[in-house]
Amino acid sequence: MASTQAAKRQKSTKDVPYELIYWPGLPGRGEHVRLALEEAGASYTDSAQQKDGINVVLAQIAPQNLGDASNPPPCAPPILKHGDLTISQTPNILLYLAPRLGLVPSAEEDEDAIYKVNQLTLTALDGLSNEVHDCHHPIATGLYYEDQKTEAKRKSEDYIANRLPKFLGYFERVLQGEASKGGKWLYGGNLTYADLVLFQCLDGVKFAFPKATGRIEKEGKFGKVFELHRAVQERPRIKEYLASEKRQKYSLGIYRHYPELDEE
Amino acid sequence: MASTQAAKRQKSTKDVPYELIYWPGLPGRGEHVRLALEEAGASYTDSAQQKDGINVVLAQIAPQNLGDASNPPPCAPPILKHGDLTISQTPNILLYLAPRLGLVPSAEEDEDAIYKVNQLTLTALDGLSNEVHDCHHPIATGLYYEDQKTEAKRKSEDYIANRLPKFLGYFERVLQGEASKGGKWLYGGNLTYADLVLFQCLDGVKFAFPKATGRIEKEGKFGKVFELHRAVQERPRIKEYLASEKRQKYSLGIYRHYPELDEE
Repeated sequence: MASTQAAKRQKSTKDVPYELIYWPGLPGRGEHVRLALEEAGASYTDSAQQKDGINVVLAQIAPQNLGDASNPPPCAPPILKHGDLTISQTPNILLYLAPRLGLVPSAEEDEDAIYKVNQLTLTALDGLSNEVHDCHHPIATGLYYEDQKTEAKRKSEDYIANRLPKFLGYFERVLQGEASKGGKWLYGGNLTYADLVLFQCLDGVKFAFPKATGRIEKEGKFGKVFELHRAVQERPRIKEYLASEKRQKYSLGIYRHYPELDEE
Repeated sequence: MASTQAAKRQKSTKDVPYELIYWPGLPGRGEHVRLALEEAGASYTDSAQQKDGINVVLAQIAPQNLGDASNPPPCAPPILKHGDLTISQTPNILLYLAPRLGLVPSAEEDEDAIYKVNQLTLTALDGLSNEVHDCHHPIATGLYYEDQKTEAKRKSEDYIANRLPKFLGYFERVLQGEASKGGKWLYGGNLTYADLVLFQCLDGVKFAFPKATGRIEKEGKFGKVFELHRAVQERPRIKEYLASEKRQKYSLGIYRHYPELDEE
């Protein structure tokens, strides 16, 4: 039974492309999945590139969708379909993809690497993605930004003064630590998907708060983190992807640039 | 090499108890780890039960801690130590523990079960833990509740009206879906750690908003979710644990009861 399943999966892994289902028109959380697939040169489809992409997403998260015999329904995109499998939640999709794409050391090489890389990924998404979204929507995601502008300004000031340095400082420490094996990449001396996630998070924060991040970068306290951002940007496949039409522009998603929320 | 590592791990898994490092005095995110260990009857130590527990946590998250040769430092508790391994982030710790504690189908039984259970876990923590924390701290975690009371009231009203039913509705759909195999547990017909997480999340939301959750439970739209809460509570080891001194009381953590934030 188990070996039949394994054989089936191996076949499907080879033969079936990955299907990313995510909102068209903004990078969002789907971007972390795209960057992993692009870095690995994997074959995939992306609903953001399809004409009716928005309806593909809406069908997945509709209240009528109860999933199927082996997959619970997703609550929100990004969603990954791969053969019979349908899974959601950004760090979960990356957890599934990374061993298949060579973006984490294999269990044979480094048994518990996946838990260390997953820890770094979850921390980057907490502090440099979720909290940044809340800067422009501190009260209710269902309301417009204009309906929570005063609160957004207070939240952003606190984020820039306290939270952003906390998380940049954390990743600087990770890069200074021995487990990074040299301080270029977060873990183990080679690029993992946690580096791609940190790149995309910092890229978004730079877009949202250009003055604050510009000042912080100049102060030089988190030099290794900004260096990692540049190093990911220069990966040949990432560079080509970022310059392509496939890279969605920042828009009304997680990372928004409202000049009044940035520092003076 | 690989088999030596595996043998080493097997030995350490048998011989070394799990060490949970978490703040004393409140259930918090550490509670998800405790419930998994308790349900499995595992042997573990808990800094919350130690006299200088707070210092054990502080040493781990101190700016001087750069981790060690194989472990990046943690950003925040809960932290799990197991032999040479140190990992953090609640869903990541559960991902590591669950196969060892029998709280997720093994890869041999159900190859991709871990990704489905991890999806459900991440979604419960997003919508029924992180967002609930933000109800009393919408502006800044570093400020007192009293300094953001007006915003907290607005956020809580939106949470009760929109977000809480959204997430309860999601888990009700999961329990109605075929992949739950009967609708008692979230996935596959047997208890997994996602059920323990959903229990603890709902337990906390019930504590924070007793009137809103009381009304919602009476309305009967999410009956299977409330039934799951009761079923976890009645698991023999969980029942014994909840009645013991080891169960921390809700306090000034994620789940706080401010009557003015609940509905009338």
